[in-house]
Amino acid sequence: MERNILLTIEYDGTNFCGWQKQPGRRSVQGEIERALGTVCGREVKLNGASRTDAGVHAYGQRASFEGGFGIPTCRIAVAANNILSGGKNSLGAAGDVRITAAEEKPLGFHARFDAKAKKYVYKIRNESEADIFKRNYAYQVVKPLNIGAMEDAAKLIVGTKDFKCFQAAGGDEKRTTVRTVYSLGITGVRDVQIEIVGDAFLYNMVRIIAGTLVEAGLGKIRPSAIASIIASVDRQNAGHTAPPQGLYLAEVYYDDLETGGFYGQAGLG
Amino acid sequence: MERNILLTIEYDGTNFCGWQKQPGRRSVQGEIERALGTVCGREVKLNGASRTDAGVHAYGQRASFEGGFGIPTCRIAVAANNILSGGKNSLGAAGDVRITAAEEKPLGFHARFDAKAKKYVYKIRNESEADIFKRNYAYQVVKPLNIGAMEDAAKLIVGTKDFKCFQAAGGDEKRTTVRTVYSLGITGVRDVQIEIVGDAFLYNMVRIIAGTLVEAGLGKIRPSAIASIIASVDRQNAGHTAPPQGLYLAEVYYDDLETGGFYGQAGLG
Repeated sequence: MERNILLTIEYDGTNFCGWQKQPGRRSVQGEIERALGTVCGREVKLNGASRTDAGVHAYGQRASFEGGFGIPTCRIAVAANNILSGGKNSLGAAGDVRITAAEEKPLGFHARFDAKAKKYVYKIRNESEADIFKRNYAYQVVKPLNIGAMEDAAKLIVGTKDFKCFQAAGGDEKRTTVRTVYSLGITGVRDVQIEIVGDAFLYNMVRIIAGTLVEAGLGKIRPSAIASIIASVDRQNAGHTAPPQGLYLAEVYYDDLETGGFYGQAGLG
Repeated sequence: MERNILLTIEYDGTNFCGWQKQPGRRSVQGEIERALGTVCGREVKLNGASRTDAGVHAYGQRASFEGGFGIPTCRIAVAANNILSGGKNSLGAAGDVRITAAEEKPLGFHARFDAKAKKYVYKIRNESEADIFKRNYAYQVVKPLNIGAMEDAAKLIVGTKDFKCFQAAGGDEKRTTVRTVYSLGITGVRDVQIEIVGDAFLYNMVRIIAGTLVEAGLGKIRPSAIASIIASVDRQNAGHTAPPQGLYLAEVYYDDLETGGFYGQAGLG
């Protein structure tokens, strides 16, 4: 019988070329498809909710796939993780991706097209000294950040707007660049964490917002200038693109009546 | 003029074959010697204080080298780190080693032979769920540890004893296996940290002690049995060898009058 299975996946993006499969390179999608191929006894094609870049991490990536498989849904994660964590070596090139849940969805459900919203976390390490153990897991900013200025800037980003200024060059010119940012919060002092929830994000949007907030925190951009930067719809006016290793795909929300729906989950009533 | 320079070095051991240079493999010693060769304008041979294994980390490795170099001692760290951190790539194979200090010592001083004591830290993550972001930085123990039992066992290890039971098979049979453990402390609950200071350590001694303490914490070894395990001088009676990724070389002590000497530093008055 055909089933549609939705996976929740976490990974350390350091040693991947990104989510998407690329010939001759190690991708998250490629590693999981290979493990699922063995577990399910047939070729599997995964639809990932977000195409994270090289070095970007995930606590809660989602991906769906359809097919008629012998293995019960409840055993897929354990069996696939057994393969994914196998062959541990000193190069750390194994054990860096793990399926944390597998659940059944109606046929036709698609992890990306049916996503209602996503939450990303961006981690900044605001210390004068580097920490080699955190080099792949946060963006090191040496000069002290003014968190209040970052918060003032963040408030002006929340809402439904044309966010073209936060889209990397090379993005699709024909499609709309209007998106809704539901919330954008900043927590912590030396370990600064930016948390953003939106309906969807343009290419590199979270990293450009993080870079822009860092520049606000360093006094290079006035927080009140954010409104005119957005209104200019010009990438040149926004801040730099913060590096990939600070970015974590934290959660993907679906319209799920059983759990009270997306708005209930995100606390956006 | 000939100088003898003592370096302090920190590294993430994940992507190294260990401290010691090995042909065709990426070692900490090899990477630093290559950088210093460029910086000093001539070949450099480093004497490391500890030959850490593959996957073992260091906050405070020490290594010394002699020669007549043009570059002032105070500029060696910055210049070498510039090379060591260069060529950052998505594979995390750069920026994982850093010189944190360089100081001059009398000619003839040797980082290993003149070391008076060393401190190692062993990190255990006592949680039922794995955390892929910590897989290379701590030993995951799933079942709950009885920290009190580990502390009781630890007390019986402190002192000057024949620690042959804690030496990995393959160690030199002819040399003495008597060592002095000055202190052995355990802190934390879920993030458990073992801190051990001793005059010198046998091959894999800290990892076997960590494995033995874990077995005491799991109720597999009675804490009071430690005395007879040590007296047996038999590796078979001790616990398992805890994995390398939990181990950190924290500090190397020298007989340094200027700073009050080793005993002052270690607080062992």
